[in-house]
Order: sequence, then C-alpha cells, then structure tokens
Amino acid sequence: MINELVKKISDLNAPVVVGLDPMLSYIPEHITKKAFEEYGETLEAAGEAIWQYNKAIVDAIYDIIPAVKPQIAMYEQFGIPGLVAFNKTCEYCKEKGLVIIGDIKRGDIGSTSGAYAAGHLGKVQIGSKSYSGFTEDFVTVNPYLGTDGVKPFIDVCNEENKGIFVLVKTSNPSSGEFQDQLVDGTPVYELVARKVVEWGETCMGDTYSNVGCVVGATYPEQGRKLRKLMPKTYILVPGYGAQGGKAEDLVDYFNADGLGAIVNSSRGIITAYKQEKYANFGAENFADASRQAVVDMIEDINGALAKH
Amino acid sequence: MINELVKKISDLNAPVVVGLDPMLSYIPEHITKKAFEEYGETLEAAGEAIWQYNKAIVDAIYDIIPAVKPQIAMYEQFGIPGLVAFNKTCEYCKEKGLVIIGDIKRGDIGSTSGAYAAGHLGKVQIGSKSYSGFTEDFVTVNPYLGTDGVKPFIDVCNEENKGIFVLVKTSNPSSGEFQDQLVDGTPVYELVARKVVEWGETCMGDTYSNVGCVVGATYPEQGRKLRKLMPKTYILVPGYGAQGGKAEDLVDYFNADGLGAIVNSSRGIITAYKQEKYANFGAENFADASRQAVVDMIEDINGALAKH
Repeated sequence: MINELVKKISDLNAPVVVGLDPMLSYIPEHITKKAFEEYGETLEAAGEAIWQYNKAIVDAIYDIIPAVKPQIAMYEQFGIPGLVAFNKTCEYCKEKGLVIIGDIKRGDIGSTSGAYAAGHLGKVQIGSKSYSGFTEDFVTVNPYLGTDGVKPFIDVCNEENKGIFVLVKTSNPSSGEFQDQLVDGTPVYELVARKVVEWGETCMGDTYSNVGCVVGATYPEQGRKLRKLMPKTYILVPGYGAQGGKAEDLVDYFNADGLGAIVNSSRGIITAYKQEKYANFGAENFADASRQAVVDMIEDINGALAKH
Repeated sequence: MINELVKKISDLNAPVVVGLDPMLSYIPEHITKKAFEEYGETLEAAGEAIWQYNKAIVDAIYDIIPAVKPQIAMYEQFGIPGLVAFNKTCEYCKEKGLVIIGDIKRGDIGSTSGAYAAGHLGKVQIGSKSYSGFTEDFVTVNPYLGTDGVKPFIDVCNEENKGIFVLVKTSNPSSGEFQDQLVDGTPVYELVARKVVEWGETCMGDTYSNVGCVVGATYPEQGRKLRKLMPKTYILVPGYGAQGGKAEDLVDYFNADGLGAIVNSSRGIITAYKQEKYANFGAENFADASRQAVVDMIEDINGALAKH
C-alpha cells in the first residue's frame, strides 16, 4: 500500500493528508440544522451531519490530495451512529480513489491486536464467508506493548497489502514525558524507531516500507534525527498548522528524493471557512474554503522544500 | 466509581472480573447455527451470536462477580454489528448491576482523548440534549502520550464518577521491550506508575483512587514492587489462567486489607465448557460451566490469599 501512497503523492506533487476529524462545532449551521430537522437532536443526527460535512469537503478536494486521515475518536464519541458515519466516510473516500489512513492508535496483546488488524485492515471469517468490518488502507498503531502487540498488524499488512504508522514521537506538549526518557543516552522514542525499522524490513514496498511512523511537526529536531535513522520509513507528520508546526520546520522530515513524509492538517483544512483568511467564502461555501486551504498548504510545503 | 467496585468486591468476597472477549470459535455451535439461520453468514449474524453467548454467560454468573471486562477489539473486528453487540452487552451487564470495565486501551493527544473519554465514560452534547455513545464505568488507557493524553479521561472521571486503569506493565511476552527499559536505573513502567499515583491523587475515592493501573499476572516480581509503590491504586490484573498467571503469584498484588487488586480471566471462564475439567457440562450447558469456572477461580484466589 505504501507504493500506492507514494505514487499518488508523486503524481499530485502533494505530500499532504487531510485529517477528517469533525467536531459538531466545526460543522456549518445549515448542515446541522437539516440533520436535526430530519433526526431530532440525536446521535443519528450527529452522525448524519458529520457525514454530510465530510462528503462535501471530500467532493471539493479529492482530486488534489493523495489521502485522508479520519480520526476515529471524533466518530466513536457519538457511539454507533458516529461509527456508521466513519465507515460511510471511509467507503466514500475509497470510491473517490483516496488512500485512507485510519487514525485509530490501537495496540494490545497479540491476540487482541490481531482482532483490531483483522477488523480495520483485513477480513474476518464468518462461516464460509469473509468480511471487512472497517476499510482503512493504513492505521496508526501504539507501540507501548512491544513487538507482539505490533506484529499482528504487520502480518495483515503482508497478507492484504496494507500499511501502518507506528507512534514514535507524538505531537502533543507532554509527549516527552515517557518518549524522551533516556535509556543509556538514547531516548525511548528512538528505541521505538529502531524497532520500527526492524519491523519495516519484514514488510517492504519498492523503496519505502509499509511500516511507517508518526513524528509530530512540533518536534523538528527529533524529526531531523529520525529521518536519518530510518531512511526507508515513511513519516506521517501531524501537528502542522493549528498545533503550531511550520513548513520550514518540516523540510528535514523529507528524504533527498523529496519523499519520505506526508504532512497532516485537520482543523486547518476542515474549518478553513471559520478562519479570517478564508472568511470571504462564507459558511455556505465551506468546502470551497477547504479546497483553497489545501492548495495553500501544498504550496507552503512545496515552497519550503524547493528552497531547501 | 472505585468505591462501588470495592464495595462489590468486598460484599461478594470476589476480587475477580470476567473478560467478555468472544471469538466466534468460542461460541457453541447451537448459538452460531441459529444466528446464521436468522441472518445468513453475515457480520450481523456474528454480532447476534456474540450477544446471545454473552447474555447466557452473564445470566449464569452475574450474582457472584462484581464486574465484567469486555475487550472491545473482539467486537470491533466485526465492524458496526460487532459494536452493536458490545453496546448491548454493556447495557445488559449494567441492568444486572455489574461494574463494566471497557478494555479499550485508548489514548491520544488531548482533544482526541477528550472525545474518547466523552464517548465511553461521559456524554456528548447534541443541540440541547446529551447522550452517552458507549456506557462503560471504567476504561483502560494507554499512557504513551503522557499526561495530556490521560488528563481528559480523568476530567470526565471526576465529572461523571467514573474510573480508568492505565497500562503500566502489560501481561504479554514482549511487554518488557519498552516498558522495562531502564532510565537512570528505573524502568519505564515505574515512571508510568509514579505518574499514575500523581494522577490518582486528583481523582480519589474513599480509600482507593479512581485512577487504577494494569499490571499483568505474568510479571509477579514487578507486581510486588508496584503494589508497594502505589498503595492507593487499584491494580487490574490480566494474565491469570490461560496466559499463565497463577493464584499464588497474585497474592502480592493485594494490600494487607485484602483489597487493591482485581484479577481478570477471559478464556478461562467463557470457554470453560471446552476444557477437560468442565467437559461434563456439555456445549449446551456452556454457561453453567462458566459459572463453575468462576466459583473455582474465586476459591483459587481466596485460598491463596488466606494462606498468605
């Protein structure tokens, strides 16, 4: 699957992914109002509003981006109807030819990780038939449980041509609390990174591995170091824009081939219409504002890469 | 919520929790057959079979156990119909007066952890109304992202009288890969444990904190050390039985008051009818076999505690 992702990034000249992480407060009133009229103030209405919001944004941007990254928590908070909206969004994005990175941050003991892997990336067997419970192409994985919590995901990646991004150094302010602790002079996140490289060797695409990693845009120094340490590992980079990461800081997350990193923006894109810069679009044209924000983001990152 | 859990454990003299982690292969054929007849070989049939299996087991054991611990991955693998079965199971267990520990191992950056916390332990606001997407009393939380990935759960615990169990030292074979790494002589899991104590102070019940931790039965030496380090922290102990943990090893996970730990068994209880010891029950009476396995487990653990 990493081959498909790399090809799309190259073809579009767009090393970006849009985080579809909807909050009800992000959604223009005309959409929520319609959903409330149809379903009342219910979980179903929330699911419907999220789905309509996502669909409009995807329709406006699918031809200029390689991938989307729905954050499942934003759907899971609305229970079953929220997860129905998650599934609909994934299926719709797949129809539109987008690579889907499910930001699920799962990870457990072996048998349990196996169930998550089957559910999100693979298939489950029911009698003589098999089904996909969810339909992502990549998922994010938490490494705290070690190799036997990650390997079931890699096994499914090998069987189904899928991929994962393992959390190495996350973008949040307190990520250093455990991740930066030094073990004989080496931070924990680097120990994780070394394992990611090892795991990655067992699941290679052409140039890059199907086992990628997550390194926050908010920690450029660590990003630079990790880039060198893991040349065949694709880096999923959250934290650009709303969380404070800047394009010039992101240059070192890329390899000399101009590849190796894919930068996520969520709020920066999906709530563009609420930002001063794009206010002229108006709430009715929120999806057009999102498209302009994507265009600007790609230009910003490619500009920084060109200067480098 | 820890007060309620402690009271139930004391009243029943049963420091145990039953893991409702169904695999299709665990379910007696008469149940899956009926579900397939009704729904075909579909995800819906899998969800229905799981639900009927769980319901029968819960009916047979609810009066002798304080709590259940459904592992959400086992439901999530079947997509939406699986999660419908998860929700039905949680709601039914709540009706039966059981404390529900959702084994979800979530954890993310602050805003995202906030969504998980609202969805599983709290409420989401939709217009003028509020709803619970899922309905657990406790959930398990992964600490890799540090304090700001855990605090949103604690905030909801304080608002809603709920609780969490934070992964400290997990039961799986490779848990030491990162968790045992020494930072100035202190293993990472102990750094996490110290934070759990700190977080726990902000969310106290009467004697114990609503912020508990997970320490696997398979690492009794670490369990002993952690028990002393975190006297007010309830320890959720997976790994008894099928994973190899023995009752005599578990004694040191308890405080002198006979409290402080709750031991989980999943396969050992829910697949009892498949074990030689309980084969005489037969597949038709699988739930009675589970009840006997619970009785034996309580006796095993209380016996070891009494000898101590």
